[in-house]
Amino acid sequence: MLIVQKYGGTSVGSIERIQAVAKRVEKAVMRGDRVVVVVSAMSGETNKLIDMATQVSKTPAAREMDMLLSSGERVTCALTAIALKELGLEAVALTGRQAGIVTDSTHTKARIEEIPSEPVTKHINEGKIVVVAGFQGATRNGEVTTLGRGGSDLTAVAIAGAIKADLCEIYTDVDGVYTTDPRVEEKARKLDRVSYDEMLELASLGAKVLQNRSVELAKKLQVKVVTRSSFNENEGTLITSEEECMEKPIVSGIALDKNQARCSLIGVADRPGIAAEIFETLASMAINVDMIVQTVGQDGKTNMDFTVPSTELEQAKRALGGFGEATGKQGFDDQVCKVSIVGVGMKSHSGVAARMFSSLAKENINILMISTSEIKISVVIARKYGELAVRILHAAYELDK
Amino acid sequence: MLIVQKYGGTSVGSIERIQAVAKRVEKAVMRGDRVVVVVSAMSGETNKLIDMATQVSKTPAAREMDMLLSSGERVTCALTAIALKELGLEAVALTGRQAGIVTDSTHTKARIEEIPSEPVTKHINEGKIVVVAGFQGATRNGEVTTLGRGGSDLTAVAIAGAIKADLCEIYTDVDGVYTTDPRVEEKARKLDRVSYDEMLELASLGAKVLQNRSVELAKKLQVKVVTRSSFNENEGTLITSEEECMEKPIVSGIALDKNQARCSLIGVADRPGIAAEIFETLASMAINVDMIVQTVGQDGKTNMDFTVPSTELEQAKRALGGFGEATGKQGFDDQVCKVSIVGVGMKSHSGVAARMFSSLAKENINILMISTSEIKISVVIARKYGELAVRILHAAYELDK
Repeated sequence: MLIVQKYGGTSVGSIERIQAVAKRVEKAVMRGDRVVVVVSAMSGETNKLIDMATQVSKTPAAREMDMLLSSGERVTCALTAIALKELGLEAVALTGRQAGIVTDSTHTKARIEEIPSEPVTKHINEGKIVVVAGFQGATRNGEVTTLGRGGSDLTAVAIAGAIKADLCEIYTDVDGVYTTDPRVEEKARKLDRVSYDEMLELASLGAKVLQNRSVELAKKLQVKVVTRSSFNENEGTLITSEEECMEKPIVSGIALDKNQARCSLIGVADRPGIAAEIFETLASMAINVDMIVQTVGQDGKTNMDFTVPSTELEQAKRALGGFGEATGKQGFDDQVCKVSIVGVGMKSHSGVAARMFSSLAKENINILMISTSEIKISVVIARKYGELAVRILHAAYELDK
Repeated sequence: MLIVQKYGGTSVGSIERIQAVAKRVEKAVMRGDRVVVVVSAMSGETNKLIDMATQVSKTPAAREMDMLLSSGERVTCALTAIALKELGLEAVALTGRQAGIVTDSTHTKARIEEIPSEPVTKHINEGKIVVVAGFQGATRNGEVTTLGRGGSDLTAVAIAGAIKADLCEIYTDVDGVYTTDPRVEEKARKLDRVSYDEMLELASLGAKVLQNRSVELAKKLQVKVVTRSSFNENEGTLITSEEECMEKPIVSGIALDKNQARCSLIGVADRPGIAAEIFETLASMAINVDMIVQTVGQDGKTNMDFTVPSTELEQAKRALGGFGEATGKQGFDDQVCKVSIVGVGMKSHSGVAARMFSSLAKENINILMISTSEIKISVVIARKYGELAVRILHAAYELDK
C-alpha cells in the first residue's frame, strides 16, 4: 500500500517521540508499504513563536508570520528524516515548497492551489520514505505561506490525493472518533467507520479530531482517512465514503455544543428581505449564526429564533438594537446548549427524530428549538441538561452496544 | 549610503535585543541610509538544534541538517522585519533562497556560487528595508544549504558585494579589532582601521571578530567592512584595502595562540619528496599543520620543525611513527605557544623583527621557532611566557599609544 502518515504536535513533541514515530514508520515499511510522512511542529512550538511575534508587535505582518511559523515544521521534518536514516532506512526531508505545495498568497491561511505529484513520487520511486513539513507551502513566486489551523492535516490529505495514496493516516493523541465525548458519557465507544458527511457534522459540532477543511478535501479527492493514536496500536476510525460504510447505523454519534446562546425575535415585520437584512448585519460584524428556525406568528407576522456563540451574544444584541420595532419583541437566553445526533442511517429510517424527542421528554427536558438536516437532528435545550441529554440519547440509540 | 548591517546571535538573542536592533536600523534610516539587515539565529539556538539532531543520530545527514539549522535564522529574520514594521518602517523578510543566494550542494558548508543583485535591490528600490536570513542559501535545484561557521558574516559581505553597498557593518558583542587580546594586555587598544591582509593574519591567529572566509571575500569584492558592537555606539574597526589605511603603523596587532604543540624531526633522510610524504600523511589524517620551518642539518640531512594544534599532537605522533628512521630523531613539545606581530608597515620598515627578538631576549624568553611573511612575524616560545611576551611586544611597538 501507498500510505501517507501524518503526525501531530504531541506525536513529535520530543526526541523520544520522534524516534517512536520513526519506529512506527519502519513497521509500515517492513510490512511492505511505501510511506510519506507529514509532520507538525513540536507541540507548543508554534505558540512559542506566535508569542514572540506578539511581543514584538500586536499586529505582526502576515507575510513575516508565515516565514516565522513555517520554521517549526522544518525542524521536526529534518529530525524525523534523520531518525529514519538512523534506523537504516532511506529517507528524504522536503519543505512544503520542495514537496510542490503551491498555494495562493493569503498569508497565514493560504489555500492550496495545486500539488503536482512528481516532487514526492520521484523520491518514492527511488525507494525513499518522503518526510514533508506540514502546514506550509509557497506561492508561485516563492513566497512562504502557511495553511492556517489544521494545516498539517490538510497537507497530508492533499498529498494523499495528489499521489493517489491508498490511505491517509492521521496520528494524534486520541484513538479516533467517538460516539460522543467520553468525558460526558463514559460508555462512549470508538467508531470503526464514519462517512465524510457524518464526520463533517460531528466535527462542526465539537469532535475535534479532524477539521472540516481536511474532511471536505478528503471527500472531494476521495482520500480514505484513518484517525488513530500514535501512542498505542489501536485501530482508529476510518473516514470514508458513505458507500464504504456498510453498516450504516441509524445514529453514529452525539455532539454537544455548550457555547450557544439563543436569540428570539417574536413578531418580525412582514416585509420581504427583512431576514436577509438581519443576518447580513450579523455577518458583517463577524457574528457566527448557527441554527436558524422560523415559524409563523400572529397577524401574518413571523417568529424567528437563532443561535450565536455565547461569547458573541452581547455583540448580537447591539446589532439587533439597530432594527428598532422591525424585529418585534426580542428575547435572549445565554444558558442554552445544542445537542445533535448524527447518522447517515437517518435517511432511510423513520422515527429517528421522534425517538429523540420522546427520550428527552421522558426526562422532562424541554426542547427550545429544533433543526433537522439529512443526516443530523439538533435541538437547543437548557444548558444545565446538556450532559444528561447526551447520556440519555447515547443509550436511546444504543451507541454503547 | 547603502549599508548592509549584520547582527550576530547575541545581538538578536532576545525579543528586547531584536527591538534594539530595529531601533538601530531606524537610526540609520533616519540618517538617510538605505539598509539591508542580515541576521544570525538567536544565540544558543543553533547549538540546541545540533544537540537535538545528535540525540537522534550520531551522524545526522548533512542535507537534513541544513533544513534543520536554517530554521533558526528564519525565526530572527521574520521577527526583525516585524519589529521594523512595528516602528512604522517598510520592511520585508527574505530567506537566503529568496534573497537569491545560490550555493553549491556541499551541505553544511556550502560555497556561494552567485548572488544576483535583483532579488534584494528590487525591494530597496521600493523604499523597503530588506531583512535577510543569514547563514543559508539554496542550490539551483532548490535544496536548502547552510554556509558553515561564520556563514551569516559571509552572507552579509556577499550581499554587500552584490548590491555594491558602501559599507558592511558586522555587529557583534565586541567593539572591534584590538591590538591584542584585552584579557592578556589591559592596555590593548581598539584599532580604527586595519587592512584586509592584516585582518587575515590576525583572524587566523585568534582574533575572533570575523572569520577569514569573510575577510577574503570582502577583499575580493572590495567590500568595506566595519566590525562594531550592537551594545553601544562606539565607532568600531574599519577593515578595508591597504591603500585606505593611511597611517600604516608598523605593527597593528599581536596575536597569541596557545593551542600549539611543536614536532621536531632532527636529521630527516635526504631524499626528494620526503617532506611531501610527511605532510600529506598528516593532511590525510586531517591534522592541521601550522608553522613549518626547515634548517640544514648535519651530514647533508635536514632538520624540520612544525607545529600542530595541541589537541592533535597524539595523532601526529602516531602518523610520524609510520616513517620509521626516515624522519630522524623525533621530539615533541606540547607546552609551547605562538606569538605573532602583524602589520602592513613591516614591508617598508627595517628592524621590525630585530626589535621583536631583542625585546623577548631582554626578558630571557627563548625563541624556539621563527617564521616570517610579508606582514607577519611569528615565534614559538614556551607556553608559560605567552602572556608576558604579548605584553612586552605590545609595549615595544607602542601599541597602547
